[in-house]
Amino acid sequence: MFQENATSSRIVARGLKIASQEGLAALTIGRLAKGLKLSKSGVFAHFLSKEALELAIIERAREVFVSHVFSSAELSTGVAKVWSLCDDWLKHIEQGIFPGSYFLNGAFFELAGQSGPVPDRIREVMQEWLDRLKLAVKQAQKEGDLNPDVDAERVAFALNGLLLGGHWAHLLQDYEALEETLAAVMDKLHSLATDKIPPQAFKAVRTFREYLKQRSP
Amino acid sequence: MFQENATSSRIVARGLKIASQEGLAALTIGRLAKGLKLSKSGVFAHFLSKEALELAIIERAREVFVSHVFSSAELSTGVAKVWSLCDDWLKHIEQGIFPGSYFLNGAFFELAGQSGPVPDRIREVMQEWLDRLKLAVKQAQKEGDLNPDVDAERVAFALNGLLLGGHWAHLLQDYEALEETLAAVMDKLHSLATDKIPPQAFKAVRTFREYLKQRSP
Repeated sequence: MFQENATSSRIVARGLKIASQEGLAALTIGRLAKGLKLSKSGVFAHFLSKEALELAIIERAREVFVSHVFSSAELSTGVAKVWSLCDDWLKHIEQGIFPGSYFLNGAFFELAGQSGPVPDRIREVMQEWLDRLKLAVKQAQKEGDLNPDVDAERVAFALNGLLLGGHWAHLLQDYEALEETLAAVMDKLHSLATDKIPPQAFKAVRTFREYLKQRSP
Repeated sequence: MFQENATSSRIVARGLKIASQEGLAALTIGRLAKGLKLSKSGVFAHFLSKEALELAIIERAREVFVSHVFSSAELSTGVAKVWSLCDDWLKHIEQGIFPGSYFLNGAFFELAGQSGPVPDRIREVMQEWLDRLKLAVKQAQKEGDLNPDVDAERVAFALNGLLLGGHWAHLLQDYEALEETLAAVMDKLHSLATDKIPPQAFKAVRTFREYLKQRSP
């Protein structure tokens, strides 16, 4: 039993590596089997279909994403939680957590126009991210940090657009893009902040980080 | 000779259709041949490799993109040119010019982390789009519509981020996303406009369209 889990875990890990670089469509059972020195039927024993394997790889990609982007945010409150989600999202790009640029946005753009369990699952994972961001904005509104009159969904949409634009430009070797995106996230939060947050906290990203650190429980 | 071109054109058209929905990696010579009732060697006679076929499909996708997004802009000047590029970009998503969501951003996110002629070409096409946007901003600055002190590259980067965010949310069935993105583009242009443009032109997207139409040569 343990052996079986260890093998399927190896299959998924290798599949994640290949798909991150070349996309899910580049994966074949044959290629995986060869790379892992297994027989094709050995791979099939763990994943009865390419679809089951793809779903397992998306689950693994989601876990990696969640552990990098959601973890610190869970320890924060108010505007610090929103900031942490955006900051860690940009860090997961900067640090190249996935070896290529396919996960998760490449997979989403590739699959979103299709139907079936795999496109459904990637849409859910993206919706989960957007919902998490929206919830953090709502909480920051409730806690008095952000203007309660703006629509949290629209704020999450705008923040997500900033992050995506940063990722996109980073892929074109624009090495200021991620830093600049973080400054744009701060400006956006500034435009929504209540007077609970002193305006000088938004002077620069460094100042804002200091402010958040200082007021954290 | 004509026959040969007509056949390769059919091969590329079908390849574009499949890749738009499922990605370039989902294409095989065998699948194309079968769908077009050609022999595999018949397809090979036109495209000596999968890579050559992929490059031809990207060229075709670029042509489609350019004809939808660059054409009207060429007839405009000043801020109207920037507006036209962004407006037509959003329209090409809204109208589903490509049958899936792979072209061009899915291809870019999938391939940008890889090396080789196909990833190089898709990077060039994206850079061409960003450069076109940047040039339009520069011209609008020169013509006195937009503040000349801001960095045109950074403005293009920000506008592109807005568009991407709109596309992304649209893929999650957020049907206000594209309209809202257009309003965000207008707000961005408003924030950069000189007093050559009356502030009331930016009251709403409809007003802004009217203003641009009225002043066009």
